[in-house]
Amino acid sequence: MTEHGMGIGKIALTLAITEGNEEKLRAKYETKGFRLMKGQVGAMDAGKIFAAVETAVIREKLISENYHEEHALYHAINEAFNGYCRGPVALDNVLKTAGMVFSVVRGNLSVGDIKNGEWIAVVLYGHIGAPRRGFEHEAIGLGIQSI
Amino acid sequence: MTEHGMGIGKIALTLAITEGNEEKLRAKYETKGFRLMKGQVGAMDAGKIFAAVETAVIREKLISENYHEEHALYHAINEAFNGYCRGPVALDNVLKTAGMVFSVVRGNLSVGDIKNGEWIAVVLYGHIGAPRRGFEHEAIGLGIQSI
Amino acid sequence: MTEHGMGIGKIALTLAITEGNEEKLRAKYETKGFRLMKGQVGAMDAGKIFAAVETAVIREKLISENYHEEHALYHAINEAFNGYCRGPVALDNVLKTAGMVFSVVRGNLSVGDIKNGEWIAVVLYGHIGAPRRGFEHEAIGLGIQSI
Amino acid sequence: MTEHGMGIGKIALTLAITEGNEEKLRAKYETKGFRLMKGQVGAMDAGKIFAAVETAVIREKLISENYHEEHALYHAINEAFNGYCRGPVALDNVLKTAGMVFSVVRGNLSVGDIKNGEWIAVVLYGHIGAPRRGFEHEAIGLGIQSI
Amino acid sequence: MTEHGMGIGKIALTLAITEGNEEKLRAKYETKGFRLMKGQVGAMDAGKIFAAVETAVIREKLISENYHEEHALYHAINEAFNGYCRGPVALDNVLKTAGMVFSVVRGNLSVGDIKNGEWIAVVLYGHIGAPRRGFEHEAIGLGIQSI
Amino acid sequence: MTEHGMGIGKIALTLAITEGNEEKLRAKYETKGFRLMKGQVGAMDAGKIFAAVETAVIREKLISENYHEEHALYHAINEAFNGYCRGPVALDNVLKTAGMVFSVVRGNLSVGDIKNGEWIAVVLYGHIGAPRRGFEHEAIGLGIQSI
Repeated sequence: MTEHGMGIGKIALTLAITEGNEEKLRAKYETKGFRLMKGQVGAMDAGKIFAAVETAVIREKLISENYHEEHALYHAINEAFNGYCRGPVALDNVLKTAGMVFSVVRGNLSVGDIKNGEWIAVVLYGHIGAPRRGFEHEAIGLGIQSI
Repeated sequence: MTEHGMGIGKIALTLAITEGNEEKLRAKYETKGFRLMKGQVGAMDAGKIFAAVETAVIREKLISENYHEEHALYHAINEAFNGYCRGPVALDNVLKTAGMVFSVVRGNLSVGDIKNGEWIAVVLYGHIGAPRRGFEHEAIGLGIQSI
Repeated sequence: MTEHGMGIGKIALTLAITEGNEEKLRAKYETKGFRLMKGQVGAMDAGKIFAAVETAVIREKLISENYHEEHALYHAINEAFNGYCRGPVALDNVLKTAGMVFSVVRGNLSVGDIKNGEWIAVVLYGHIGAPRRGFEHEAIGLGIQSI
Repeated sequence: MTEHGMGIGKIALTLAITEGNEEKLRAKYETKGFRLMKGQVGAMDAGKIFAAVETAVIREKLISENYHEEHALYHAINEAFNGYCRGPVALDNVLKTAGMVFSVVRGNLSVGDIKNGEWIAVVLYGHIGAPRRGFEHEAIGLGIQSI
Repeated sequence: MTEHGMGIGKIALTLAITEGNEEKLRAKYETKGFRLMKGQVGAMDAGKIFAAVETAVIREKLISENYHEEHALYHAINEAFNGYCRGPVALDNVLKTAGMVFSVVRGNLSVGDIKNGEWIAVVLYGHIGAPRRGFEHEAIGLGIQSI
Repeated sequence: MTEHGMGIGKIALTLAITEGNEEKLRAKYETKGFRLMKGQVGAMDAGKIFAAVETAVIREKLISENYHEEHALYHAINEAFNGYCRGPVALDNVLKTAGMVFSVVRGNLSVGDIKNGEWIAVVLYGHIGAPRRGFEHEAIGLGIQSI
């Protein structure tokens, strides 16, 4: 696979499902103009997931702390969250999630695609299930927004 | 990362976003009791995406051709499709999709987890966007069902 | 069970899933101030289901042909249809339905509950599945609106 | 009506809306290879409805206590719950429900249809409305999953 | 613009986004057979929004206090609320709303349209955003029901 | 009402429901740094509504013709469309819409709020109903995105 055209979404997906190669990935794509980060959230409700990702992204300075950029991030998280849940039932009182990781990447839509400006990609990857140990399976969501 | 506990979802995600290592991945996980396949669908409506995945899965014999298994596969595709779309707007006449790939994996919920029986994981990965070349970004969806 | 308090929804549900007792049911509840009807629609899209129910209800004079009553009927069908589909995926190009019956009942909210005025209940009951004979299971939806 | 072809959904619907004939129904269909149960849940949130049905189904041994079967049951409850709510608004803080009954049936998709294996059907039937006595109407939902 | 045909929805929208002309609007349309009211709700969850509108509407006697009319009002609020949220994510624990106003109008579907009976229109207009001052933008929703 | 703080959403809403004052509104807000436009779409499907708004916005040069800005516009239209439909049923084959107008405004989030950058607001306002003349009522949707 040539790197040319590698998408921001695939970078974020790879970062999210990788265990151990995070630093190598970050180094590789930062030379191409991307910013990458990865974090973790415990068992929690939707509001806490949104807050955890936003707090981490601001702390790592992937977005500026104004409403313009915060709004784009919010919509990217929201799309990732909808993808993660795959349907209309509320997460909070029906399902539990444990060990969710998130990755956030900021940069061009794909490597070298400068003319379309900057974008932000958010991936949520983890387990979703009944509130009983082992009664859970994996889920993933990806949201991409212009920023 | 130890392979123990590698989830069926992560296997399907890796297969979907990999370009070039498909055979290596397949060989590796087939020794652990999984069946893997990957295919491609062009620009099309929802009905054609469902039909393309179902036809390929049956041709590759990942499921038996009865309604019990076909129903589990349908729900896995449906969850993947909902994750891919991330919301309530119809794909067909609002958005176009081009170059979507799908991966399907059948086996235990994670490597070595024999007591919970067989599952099927479906990943849709591709681009979604306006019907104009380059006006699109990536999307992904993952669905997992017991089978 | 005493008949007092028998709900309009349960009357419509019973009428929909009964085969052979329709006239007896109709006679019984028409003496209590209800109007009942039952019809059938073939394999078809959402627009045709709505049109078939509306046409039949107007032909049987369960509603007056003005927008006020037609609007209440529309919302009752819509709720029944959402219940039948149980989620956000479009019926038309993903799933097929065959042999759906519908029942419509107009009257009080329950037998003898005169103070809350007139209501309309719509039930859709049938099969939903892949476009292959036998690859389908049952589905039901109930909508109730004040009229 | 001949019993041949009587669907698992219609059995569960009949059991849910019957008052007084439960034992007769259970006896009749248990000779045809079905397991039937019925229970009740009070005014409560979505999480409690799911938990009440799951607990009762496990206690009555309609499913084995592993994640494979529990997952199928969860999806059947979820479909029934979506049908019951008929739309995207959260039940918990907008609407109240009182006196909901549920029925669960395990067996073939219809009487005598052995080749398609075992399925589980869940029906939720009750009232939904404002938190004021009498300000409520009936609702129903049916979910069917292969198990 | 001639007043003939002025819709109940546009009357409610104008009342909601007007600041200072409320009494003039009310006087103008009350001579044409409409009842108008406007109120305000603070930062709150979905259940409190529904309760605040219902309480105000009953206090101002725009509806009679029976379930028939209350049900129509509930559905109008629900449609307005869905329009306000524009999607499937729960308001309560993800987003905050502050300074929402609501307007409710009861009367014909449009000025002079007597043959289609009475209707109720509900508008919610306010801000929606992150729980941080200034990190919010406007939202609106309109629901119309026959009553 | 003082103009200070007048929101971009309220400007777009006023433009959409005004008949006759469009030029005055445009002149007033263009001196404050906003771009305003208004158009009309006939009876049509979702895809045509999206295309009509996008084409008009590009023709009036409210956005630059690159994917970054087109993506923000798409999401604003999508939110407006979801608000207009107020629920999960597909517009196309169930409902008809006639005489929809749309307004689009680009500028700060509110008059004088320069620090949060540029935004785009889209309003869809029209009628929605059965495909029969006069069997329809008003609907509105508003979407706001950073651009």
